[in-house]
Order: sequence, then structure tokens, then C-alpha cells
Amino acid sequence: MNPVTENGTTERSTERPAHERKEPTYLFTEKQVAEKGELARRFIETRARLNANVEKANNFLVKRFYNIDHNAYLEGVLPAKTKELMGLVASACLRCDDCVFYHAIQAYRLGVARAEQEDSLNVALVVGGSIVIPHLRRAYELLEELYA
Amino acid sequence: MNPVTENGTTERSTERPAHERKEPTYLFTEKQVAEKGELARRFIETRARLNANVEKANNFLVKRFYNIDHNAYLEGVLPAKTKELMGLVASACLRCDDCVFYHAIQAYRLGVARAEQEDSLNVALVVGGSIVIPHLRRAYELLEELYA
Amino acid sequence: MNPVTENGTTERSTERPAHERKEPTYLFTEKQVAEKGELARRFIETRARLNANVEKANNFLVKRFYNIDHNAYLEGVLPAKTKELMGLVASACLRCDDCVFYHAIQAYRLGVARAEQEDSLNVALVVGGSIVIPHLRRAYELLEELYA
Amino acid sequence: MNPVTENGTTERSTERPAHERKEPTYLFTEKQVAEKGELARRFIETRARLNANVEKANNFLVKRFYNIDHNAYLEGVLPAKTKELMGLVASACLRCDDCVFYHAIQAYRLGVARAEQEDSLNVALVVGGSIVIPHLRRAYELLEELYA
Amino acid sequence: MNPVTENGTTERSTERPAHERKEPTYLFTEKQVAEKGELARRFIETRARLNANVEKANNFLVKRFYNIDHNAYLEGVLPAKTKELMGLVASACLRCDDCVFYHAIQAYRLGVARAEQEDSLNVALVVGGSIVIPHLRRAYELLEELYA
Amino acid sequence: MNPVTENGTTERSTERPAHERKEPTYLFTEKQVAEKGELARRFIETRARLNANVEKANNFLVKRFYNIDHNAYLEGVLPAKTKELMGLVASACLRCDDCVFYHAIQAYRLGVARAEQEDSLNVALVVGGSIVIPHLRRAYELLEELYA
Repeated sequence: MNPVTENGTTERSTERPAHERKEPTYLFTEKQVAEKGELARRFIETRARLNANVEKANNFLVKRFYNIDHNAYLEGVLPAKTKELMGLVASACLRCDDCVFYHAIQAYRLGVARAEQEDSLNVALVVGGSIVIPHLRRAYELLEELYA
Repeated sequence: MNPVTENGTTERSTERPAHERKEPTYLFTEKQVAEKGELARRFIETRARLNANVEKANNFLVKRFYNIDHNAYLEGVLPAKTKELMGLVASACLRCDDCVFYHAIQAYRLGVARAEQEDSLNVALVVGGSIVIPHLRRAYELLEELYA
Repeated sequence: MNPVTENGTTERSTERPAHERKEPTYLFTEKQVAEKGELARRFIETRARLNANVEKANNFLVKRFYNIDHNAYLEGVLPAKTKELMGLVASACLRCDDCVFYHAIQAYRLGVARAEQEDSLNVALVVGGSIVIPHLRRAYELLEELYA
Repeated sequence: MNPVTENGTTERSTERPAHERKEPTYLFTEKQVAEKGELARRFIETRARLNANVEKANNFLVKRFYNIDHNAYLEGVLPAKTKELMGLVASACLRCDDCVFYHAIQAYRLGVARAEQEDSLNVALVVGGSIVIPHLRRAYELLEELYA
Repeated sequence: MNPVTENGTTERSTERPAHERKEPTYLFTEKQVAEKGELARRFIETRARLNANVEKANNFLVKRFYNIDHNAYLEGVLPAKTKELMGLVASACLRCDDCVFYHAIQAYRLGVARAEQEDSLNVALVVGGSIVIPHLRRAYELLEELYA
Repeated sequence: MNPVTENGTTERSTERPAHERKEPTYLFTEKQVAEKGELARRFIETRARLNANVEKANNFLVKRFYNIDHNAYLEGVLPAKTKELMGLVASACLRCDDCVFYHAIQAYRLGVARAEQEDSLNVALVVGGSIVIPHLRRAYELLEELYA
């Protein structure tokens, strides 16, 4: 992370040049993840099937939203790994199993360690409370499968 | 971040030894932050006053919760900086101005750059949608003050 | 929609006479919708079975709530179609699959076009953010079935 | 609204040609609304001031999100009036006072009647429950001012 | 509480006769509470002023909702005290300061002890997580005033 | 409940001595509940299986959170029964089926009557709105099974 200057000032953020927002490098393909076990496979396949249906509809605004969503997790000021884990925290706090699975898998594909996923989920648990626990349980079941 | 081993496996997480959960090193005191401007000062003072009132009540479970909350952001598997930014993302997604201010200030105290705070808020904006915008506006007002 | 008068004033809202809150005219019965495909059929049947169980309990307050809920979507100042689509937007924002399915089916039964359902879901997507996407995917799967 | 064809089918949604997504025609400027009273004026001025600060930051993703947000409420398959009221319902359900104020003002500027705003808020109240009431109260205070 | 019969069966709930849903007996009037301090007074006065404005609008569905809301907290199968504390827990979990204040004051008016209010807030804190803390702080400030 | 003293004052809450926070006495074991029917059995078994997986991970902060969560529902200032019903209300408001099932079963095990469960769910329905209805339906299905 860039250090703050001595008097606590940093340059104002400016439009990031295109080359700073680039695709992350994945260690594993979605296909490789799907082979790790049933939970991952079923999630990836269902998501692909439903997304194909959304794409067929060709809705202008949905396509733009998907695009901006894709952009949010590219390598940028913060590494893609960190942002996928932030997506995981946000998803667990907002209690969306599909989103938790998606970001946990993306983080895995980027080489994030299991302990890092757990440390992220801890932030979500403390911020979001016991209502997060059922989602935490299902997330741990997936982690068990991915990091077996 | 610890790399995943070649076959996509990492050791199972185990209880972190005490020395791995240690207090982070702050570049700035709360007092120094309060001097950055009105928004920060008012937030820090109000929070201190209300927390003193909570502490006076000496409620067993509240004290334990505050303690676990404190533990969640210590240096651990993930750096404190990253976890404060995760707290920021979670707070913005769940739309809590006080929590957004708290974590933005903590991140600032740890030396996080403004651009990193913005990149984190972007994840919250995309995950949480336009309903996050009013909180984003107030967060940017604070960032303007902190990083002036 | 009733135009606002030239100086931006409208009459104050007053209790709507009973005849202005009337049942909408459905183009299709629930049974006809259930025959459109598996998703619709399963949703309608499960909902009917569980509602029968609730009715059997004969709880005073639940019955009153169901009654007020029914009233909110009648033809009124706004057409029932518009209010069902508003129910769809609210349901998608609050991320309740059952509620999304219910209002999408009600809107369909009232003759709402698929493009209107999508335009409504777009408002929910932008307001509610990417956390809405899994629900959007399932909604599109239902739309595909209904408007086949 | 476009009728559904006799067998319950409509054409699949397709990318809306650019000319179908056009700016709505406002009956009143923001300045005229601000002159209606203190609540409206303060909201509009604060929002403008904070938005200016966000714009100054020139954050790439924020700008794109603002752009897609703007697009969601243009005249399209559904009239802008209807979508602003949907934005109002979503905002009230998700309990964001600023968002409620924004959409109520936008709807007013487009000539929506007070009774239509109330009918929309009723959907939000029933879907979102009594937790919406404090926001409803503040919304009614604004409506009183706008439609005086 | 009515014991469950030995084989774990109870009679099915049936419509509660009118006399079982009766107004609770308050130990203190709203006016007396308002005299306890600034926080209580300001809350009670603002709420009364805004409610008067809502009542003036005379909206059919709003009036019905207010009525059902009133009914939910009457003496019934559970004592009014318990239900006001449940309203407090729900309000704190859903993070609505106005609702927290309302139910804390109602519970106080019914003679609920401070320690009981705290025990209820603890359930909300654990279920809802650290995002509840800012609301807890403000609730404790009110409790300090009420139980001075 | 402890009465408030005549001038509306109670002693300040203080740390509850350990003997005041004690395990509640259950009328039924989890095993007995599981034998009541399919819904209960499947819920209890799945939860046990997933919790075993979480425990295996031995995560420090998760264990502490589980511990504080356990403490929140012990016999204390308020009876365990009341707090389990508060947990039910919070779970229904926050719309978590697993949590609703958990607290409904705990309340049943403590001898809470069905009518008391319904009265609690009514508070959740009114506070949380119609979005709670799908969860209410599933809760009633479980109640039907438990109190058969």
C-alpha cells in the first residue's frame, strides 16, 4: 500500500489510466474449481446456465451493470485478491449465499489461502452478527471442499 | 499473501498463536485526526462521549462484544489495514455512516492512501447499489478533510 | 397520471371512496400460469399449500396483515399493474425470491409485457446493487418461462 | 402498457434503440423546487455541495455508476414518472431518507400528483413494515411542503 | 407462559377473543417521559408533530397500517411489556434509531427495568452485529436519561 | 419483571454475577424434536453436520463469537424463553429461515406454547412487513409439525 506522506496527505485520486485496471491472473480455471467437489461444481454450472439466459435477453442496462461489476474487481489501486475478499465480506454481511460462493471461488482462483478467507469472514461475522452464521457454515463447507 | 500450493491445497487454518494477533501500529493518534477538521473532530468526540456512557453501564455482554470486535481488526493472517478497509466496505454496504467514518479514520491512521479508500468504497458501491450513494457522498466529504 | 396544477399544487389526498379501490382484472388465472412451466407451477403450488396451513391457524393479526397486503395492490390512484411492478422492485431490492416470483406472476397475469418487467428489475438492480444479481438471474429464468 | 398477446407471449426484450432512452421533460427546475420550502431547499443544496466534492475526486468507477444510475430513470419502456416512483418505493423499503427525498422531488418535477406519491409509499409501507414509518413521516413532511 | 403438554402438544392457536387483546396499563404518560430529559422530549415532540401531519393526509392504507401496528403490542398471549421489548430488539437489529427510541420509551412507560432493556439490546447486538453498536450507544444515552 | 421504582428509577445495571447467567432447563432434547417430523429433523441434522465442519476449522474468532452467542440466550435478567422468542423476532425481521427455525425449536424445547410463538412472529410481521410473509409461512409449517 502506498504510504501516506508525512503530513498525512496523499495526492488526490485521479482517473486511473487504463493500463492500471487490468485482468487479474488466475491460478485455476473455473473448470478446475468445478472438479474440486459437488458444491463448487453445482454452483458454477447453475450460475453459468442462468447467466446464459440473462445474456440472451440482451438487456442494455443489465449488460452495463455486469460490465461495471466486472471492472470493480480488476487489478487496480488495490490488488484483485483484496477486492475479491472485500466482495466476500460484503456478500456475507448482506447474507447472499450465491455471492459468498462466487467471491470465495474467485479468491481461491487467485491463490488466496484458506486462512485469509477465514480472516475475511471473521470481519463479516463481527460486523453482521449471528445472522451471518448460517452463511458462514455454508461458506466453510465450500472452503473444506476447495482447500481439501 | 501466502500462495496456495500447487495442487490448490493449503494447510487447514488453526488457532492463531497469540503473538500473531497483535495491535497495529498507528501513524496518527485519534487526537491528530480530530485536528484535521470539523467532521472528524465531531465524530470522534461524540463517539467518545457515548462510549463512556456505555462503559459506565458495565454490561457484561456488551463488554465481551466490544472485545471481540476489537480482536477482529488486529494484525493477523491479513494485515490490519486490509481488515479496516473490509470494515469500511461492510459498513458502506450496510449503510451505517458512523461505521463508515470509524473505519475510514482507522484506515487513515494506519497509513492507507485515499485512493485505496476510494477503491474499497467502489466495491461497496457496486455490491450495495445506488442506495449507498448518500453514504459515499458523506464518506468523500470526510476523505476530503482527512487527506487535505 | 393526474397532472399537477400550474403552480405545482394538487389537492390533498383524501380517503379514497370504496369504488376506487377495486379488484384488478386478470388476463390469466393462477392455474393458467402454473401450466406455463415447472418454475411457475412449483412456486404456485408450494405457496398455496403453505398459505392453507397459515389460514388454518386462524391468527387474528396475520389475517389482518394479509388483508391490508391485498388492499395495497388493488386498482387505486395508481393502476394495479404499476403497483405489482413496484412490488417487484421492492422485492428484488430486499432480495426475496418468493416475493419476486409472486409479483412477476401477478404482473404477468395483468398483462404486463416482459420488457416492462425487465425495466422494473433494472431499477431494482441499480438501487440494490450487484447483490441483487442472483435474484435477477432467477427472475429472468421465470420470465423466460412465462413469456415463452 | 403493451398488451401481452393472446397466448400470453410477448416478443423477447431486445436492446432498446438509443432514441427510446431519452431525458424526461421536467415541469419544474430544481431551483423552483428549492423555493417550495426549507426541507426541499436544504436537501437540494446539501446534495449539490456533496456531489460537487465527489465529482472533484474524478473516480472512474463512481462516474460510471452515476452514469448507469442516470440511465435507469430515463424515459424507456416504462415512463420516467413510473420509474421515479419505483425509485421512491425502493428507497422507502431500504429506508434511505436522502433517496426518498430525491425520488419524491424528481417525481414532483415530472408532474406526479401527491396522491400517486402516497399510493407508492403505501406499497413500500406494506412491503417494508412499520420500520418504514419514520421515513414515511419525513416523506409526508416533504410532500406537505411540495404540494402546499 | 402456558406450559406445553407432556407430549409436546398445545392447542392450536385460534382467534383471540377481543377481551384478550386489551390496552396495557402505563405507569407513566408520554408527558412525564418527555420531562425526563432533552433526548426523550425532542423525540416525543418531533414524532407527535410529524404524526399529526400524516394524520391530516388521512390516507386509508396508512391509517389501517397504524391500526394493525397498534394491535400488535396490546396485552395478548404475551404481555405488552414483552412485546415492546421485542419491538426494541427488532428495531435495533434493523437499525432504526426512531424505532429504538419509541419502543424503549414504551417499555419504560410500562415499568420495564433498565436491566431488562439492556438484556434485550444484547440479543439485538449479538444477532445484528457490530453495525448495531452506534444505535446501541444512542439507546444507552436515552436509557441513562430515562432511568436517571 | 422487576418493577421500576416510584420515581421511575431503577438501579444501574451492573455486571451480572456468574450464577445469574445459567443454562436453561430444556423440556425436550434436540433428538426428541428431530423425531417430531421431517422439517425439524432435516434442519437439526444439517446444522449439526455443518457446525461440526466449522468446529474442525478451530478458528479463534469464530469460537469466541459462538461463545458470546450462547451467552446471550442464557437465563439472566430476562428468562431464556423470552430471549429465544426475541431471537425468533429478530430472525424473522432479518429474514433468515435457518435462524427462525433454530429459535422456534429452542423456544419449543423450553416449553413455549404455539400461541406465544405466533404472537412473537406477529411482532416480526408488523415491524418487518410483507417481505417477512414467505418466512412466516415456513415458520408456520414448522410450528404445525412441532405442536402436532
